[in-house]
Amino acid sequence: MSSTTQLSSESRSQYEAKAYAAASAESPLAPTMIPRRDPGEHDVQIEILFCGICHSDLHTVRNEWSAAMPTVYPCVPGHEIVGRVIKVGSAVTKFKSGDIAAVGCMVDSDGNCAECQASLEQFCSHMTLTYNSPDIHLGGVTYGGYSDSIVVKEHFVLRVPSNLNLARAAPLLCAGITTYSPMRHWGVTEGKKVGVVGLGGLGHMAVKIAHALGAYVIVFTTSPNKKEDALRLGADEVVISRDTDQMNKHKGSFDFILDAVSAEHDINSYIRLLRRDGNMTLVGAPAKPHAVAAFSLIFKRCSLSGSNIGGIAETQEMLDFCGRNNITADVEVIPIQKVNEAYERLLKSDVKYRFSIDMASLKSQ
Amino acid sequence: MSSTTQLSSESRSQYEAKAYAAASAESPLAPTMIPRRDPGEHDVQIEILFCGICHSDLHTVRNEWSAAMPTVYPCVPGHEIVGRVIKVGSAVTKFKSGDIAAVGCMVDSDGNCAECQASLEQFCSHMTLTYNSPDIHLGGVTYGGYSDSIVVKEHFVLRVPSNLNLARAAPLLCAGITTYSPMRHWGVTEGKKVGVVGLGGLGHMAVKIAHALGAYVIVFTTSPNKKEDALRLGADEVVISRDTDQMNKHKGSFDFILDAVSAEHDINSYIRLLRRDGNMTLVGAPAKPHAVAAFSLIFKRCSLSGSNIGGIAETQEMLDFCGRNNITADVEVIPIQKVNEAYERLLKSDVKYRFSIDMASLKSQ
Repeated sequence: MSSTTQLSSESRSQYEAKAYAAASAESPLAPTMIPRRDPGEHDVQIEILFCGICHSDLHTVRNEWSAAMPTVYPCVPGHEIVGRVIKVGSAVTKFKSGDIAAVGCMVDSDGNCAECQASLEQFCSHMTLTYNSPDIHLGGVTYGGYSDSIVVKEHFVLRVPSNLNLARAAPLLCAGITTYSPMRHWGVTEGKKVGVVGLGGLGHMAVKIAHALGAYVIVFTTSPNKKEDALRLGADEVVISRDTDQMNKHKGSFDFILDAVSAEHDINSYIRLLRRDGNMTLVGAPAKPHAVAAFSLIFKRCSLSGSNIGGIAETQEMLDFCGRNNITADVEVIPIQKVNEAYERLLKSDVKYRFSIDMASLKSQ
Repeated sequence: MSSTTQLSSESRSQYEAKAYAAASAESPLAPTMIPRRDPGEHDVQIEILFCGICHSDLHTVRNEWSAAMPTVYPCVPGHEIVGRVIKVGSAVTKFKSGDIAAVGCMVDSDGNCAECQASLEQFCSHMTLTYNSPDIHLGGVTYGGYSDSIVVKEHFVLRVPSNLNLARAAPLLCAGITTYSPMRHWGVTEGKKVGVVGLGGLGHMAVKIAHALGAYVIVFTTSPNKKEDALRLGADEVVISRDTDQMNKHKGSFDFILDAVSAEHDINSYIRLLRRDGNMTLVGAPAKPHAVAAFSLIFKRCSLSGSNIGGIAETQEMLDFCGRNNITADVEVIPIQKVNEAYERLLKSDVKYRFSIDMASLKSQ
């Protein structure tokens, strides 16, 4: 565990920050004040400029993942955070006041376990999520980025390439790394044939990143009217997944398919498009289990896997990659006052492709 | 395609071989005569000494895989073949009369495609199965090892280490390679924690091979009375899969799990036992699809895959490995006249762990 676990919640000085919180699973998000710890020697205090809205925010606010991770209220979501450093602890070396910095899905981990040593903090059993995880400093749970500031241990603070638009860079911290990490893990490089299932917040990032990695990118969609947009985002081809002839044309040919769909769907029809040793990775998780035909995996030694964000070093690598390739999310910038409306639109996939909250709007709250 | 495809079926000289065949999906296996080609310049003619009984034989004889591979009758199954070379073609260099040789699940492939060049003939789209595949030499379909002899292209004939008992070595040609190949592919080595689900023909080979590879081997079984046998075969531990406490003790700890069960079962309860980046490989294929919870793959970046026998080079590697480690199957040797009875017992898992047909019994037929 981190050294800070030694501090009791009483001993830690704190301040009040503005935030938007849900008071219960049925409540809309509303303005409130939350405690933040004063930055310790290893901490970075960040004035939040933009925070992306991830579908996880909505699931957590509404306690839809109660079985695995019950929500503690009040709940302040948000883990696609970009901001400006306003204060650093005495031991901080990588950041100084005025720097642009970012925070993703994690704010702490034990640092010593095999996972942390392998730079895979996301798999550390003591990892602290940016929101709705036990707060070892102040007690209660951690509060996320729908707030005017946040205090985070230096190791979990990322640098943002200076050429990136900040509102559009915010979603890289979850949607970006969630799609970048499995592509790197399963060897997506120049010339590989990559499929992307689902053109939403995650999917549109996957298309941009796969294209920049040099892959031949095919987007699967049920909506012919998404074709033009998919091509604009970097797809080389669009396949209407309901068209059996179109699907059959690609049988046994994909090196990698990323499945970003959280709704129920038939994944065997995609597995059979994989070539020998091909991999399909799930980053969306439908409520019901997938029906997987064993033969579809056996005949070509294919694999079906899952992926969960990425480690801190890999998140920085992804941000730097996006900087070099000028990749950001397509966003609709909203004031925090529109967050509840944005949630309703998110449920209807009525956004191209990510909401990014301009946190300046919180100052006037 | 191989050079032999140029020959029309008329032009090929042939002889008659004794065999046991099923005349229809409802017929028992019965004695018959089948044509075999006279050995060509690249061919090896083998007097079959032993042939293992694989569950695939039964599925094919009864046309249970009709959707993917409809059975052509008469059907002579058998792809776990060990015998003595009686004649070789003029271009054959690796075998001579009198050698002990073996044949597995394949007897031909195109030889030039990317899969063949990668020594992965099992994935060649022109691969010829040992039985029930189109016979490019004589027309009709290929006939398997329930016969007194077989003629096979040299490349598909394997050497059998001289220290191995031949009746017990026969099942290595399918059960052995089917379990060896995924363990090598997914990096089972000294010190890895390996699970084996299902202690049948495949499972008992998996235990022996994993143990010889230096892994810590845990057998999952629903039957407490299999414990002693599992330990004798080389398991370090036995877990009763219906005992939730026993299962929970191993959560997140396995590097690799081989699932050799063809009956319907809950695979999520095994996936959650995998550690980060762990793999579970299916070599059994239930008729109904598996229900796979996406979260169980996502949380630890696990993968679920399939595996399909192995290439010829890897099959030879497996045989040599078994020779060095003195590994063979546990078999019950039967005369060919008991094959129909053996099928009934196979359906009840009433064999420890593989039937091996002593083909000398066919001479007296």
